Amino acid sequence: MSIQDNFRLAMRSYIYSVSVLSNKDNFGNCNAITVSSVTSISMEPPSLLVCINKDSKIHDRLQIDSDFCINLLTKDQETISNVCSSEAMHDQRFNDPRWNIESVPYLTNAQANIFCKVDKLISYHTHSIVIAHVTKSTSKDKINTLTYVDGSYA
Amino acid sequence: MSIQDNFRLAMRSYIYSVSVLSNKDNFGNCNAITVSSVTSISMEPPSLLVCINKDSKIHDRLQIDSDFCINLLTKDQETISNVCSSEAMHDQRFNDPRWNIESVPYLTNAQANIFCKVDKLISYHTHSIVIAHVTKSTSKDKINTLTYVDGSYA
Repeated sequence: MSIQDNFRLAMRSYIYSVSVLSNKDNFGNCNAITVSSVTSISMEPPSLLVCINKDSKIHDRLQIDSDFCINLLTKDQETISNVCSSEAMHDQRFNDPRWNIESVPYLTNAQANIFCKVDKLISYHTHSIVIAHVTKSTSKDKINTLTYVDGSYA
Repeated sequence: MSIQDNFRLAMRSYIYSVSVLSNKDNFGNCNAITVSSVTSISMEPPSLLVCINKDSKIHDRLQIDSDFCINLLTKDQETISNVCSSEAMHDQRFNDPRWNIESVPYLTNAQANIFCKVDKLISYHTHSIVIAHVTKSTSKDKINTLTYVDGSYA
């Protein structure tokens, strides 16, 4: 097997929390994409990073100082995870009535909503590493986080 | 509550896979640290990142082109996770007989071993973001990955 195949196989045993990254661009269009690569960096300043494929529609809508929300999903939100990771269902991303899209779009029924402002964009081959300041966070008391492992939800 | 406190609270509901990053420095000294921030970036080239606190002993031992291993832990490896996250137990990190320390140290009983070479180091306030090429990966068939949520192992 190639290095890639063995790496892919090793990462299949990695257990990921599933989030949807959402934003509204300068034209007022809402965007959303399912992500598994959210990582907190520091508490001083409160900050996190997320890796975004350059081929994704949302990629060019993430600019320095633009706002977005990381919606950490619950086990009840597999559907929105599937919709936001499918190019074919792109037009259905904001059909769920639990979206609040007044300002930065966020899912009102998420496990947590972490509002961020892009601080740095680091290009790395096929992906950009988006580093952002956290500006506000809310979370539910009961932990019921959606995870993904070995090609399916856990 | 402060932004930090709310962010910390939101991240308590994030479910992390637990790994130990290990390396051998230019003086032949073995180092290891428990990390929860491993994220794959790209398959072209196969690459991942990990965030390392600048205060940690291992930080300055990670230089461009240096080798390390990400040992994704199993549920049976809470002890090594605790040892490698404790400054007080620093001298005990390589007591576990399952370490192979001939070259780049790795845990022979880990869920997966992902061998990497540092490609870029990005300083971000209290932490460095270590971006590395994956050079080799091995993994166990049965998935039994150690996770951490809300301040304890899941």
